[in-house]
Amino acid sequence: MSGYIPPLARLIDEFAAMPGVGRRSAARMAFHVLKMPEAQANSLAEAIVEAKKKIKYCSVCCNITDTDPCEICRSGRRDRSIICVVENARDVVALENTNEYKGLYHVLHGVISPMDGIGPEDIRIKELLPRITDEVKEVIVATNPTIEGEATAMYISKLLSPFSVKVTRIAHGLPMGGDLEYADEITLTKAMEGRHEI
Amino acid sequence: MSGYIPPLARLIDEFAAMPGVGRRSAARMAFHVLKMPEAQANSLAEAIVEAKKKIKYCSVCCNITDTDPCEICRSGRRDRSIICVVENARDVVALENTNEYKGLYHVLHGVISPMDGIGPEDIRIKELLPRITDEVKEVIVATNPTIEGEATAMYISKLLSPFSVKVTRIAHGLPMGGDLEYADEITLTKAMEGRHEI
Repeated sequence: MSGYIPPLARLIDEFAAMPGVGRRSAARMAFHVLKMPEAQANSLAEAIVEAKKKIKYCSVCCNITDTDPCEICRSGRRDRSIICVVENARDVVALENTNEYKGLYHVLHGVISPMDGIGPEDIRIKELLPRITDEVKEVIVATNPTIEGEATAMYISKLLSPFSVKVTRIAHGLPMGGDLEYADEITLTKAMEGRHEI
Repeated sequence: MSGYIPPLARLIDEFAAMPGVGRRSAARMAFHVLKMPEAQANSLAEAIVEAKKKIKYCSVCCNITDTDPCEICRSGRRDRSIICVVENARDVVALENTNEYKGLYHVLHGVISPMDGIGPEDIRIKELLPRITDEVKEVIVATNPTIEGEATAMYISKLLSPFSVKVTRIAHGLPMGGDLEYADEITLTKAMEGRHEI
């Protein structure tokens, strides 16, 4: 028994279920909600429901979006001859923030990981194949430099070998075992520049 | 521009406004919401609205509660001759978790802090006076051992001097400058035992 009254205990439980939020932080957040004006608390609740409702997956690149196709896939200013394959939507934001990459994306929503029972069919790899048209000259595989990320890159490279498309791997400018999401803009740019054919 | 689509950017902003939540954590939390089943996201939103709606202040002790008077004030098993004055509702939970204190509480919702423009009239001190009946033998002032907490304790001690009630201060078993909320149960129990008359 935590000693909190039920509606508060429930809110603390909900916050504590978030990644990286411990019970102490969850309690601080819940007390913060109690101190908010009611309108502000309602706005927070609404943002959660709205985000969940409005955000869908782009039918082309599988990135999260509130329009379909997403802004990047619809844009006339992107280089449609390059597709960059990433693990998740946060990686797209990280790459966009470098302001260096002007091609399209493909979001896998995961990596192949036999240890966790995740096979190629569990992530958005099959959605990539119909996108490999004559227009596409290069596919950059920018999965994380982890065992799973490398294995996924190898799998995609083999899968695309029948196509006349260059498959490249983002350079290991990132420290091995690191996470693309937390890399700084310069390291990410360097890694993009130093990409090599698999 | 963060690079996130509007409904997601809004949710990240809302989370980042929480105490102790940075932009990176807020983004992780927001993505966690997107991955939740819709029912779970709605449940989180509902918990926020519900907590805000259901939780009120006890008309007796000013603690947060979903019933009025609160469970502690209504209980027949509490020692009604002792009132412990604390800064906030989290301190009540901390003291309750020691399982040592069986008296009543009074929650100030702050401390006197002239630097921040908070005077005695801005916290729940006046609500304490009508509670000092003949039944009450002792008032334990358990504000934090900070400058503001000590000043508030002195103020309450002077305010209650016309009454025939013993005013005691929680012992300085807690390290000075610390926070009652983060003390462990044993330290808190020791501090309660070693209390002395002001």
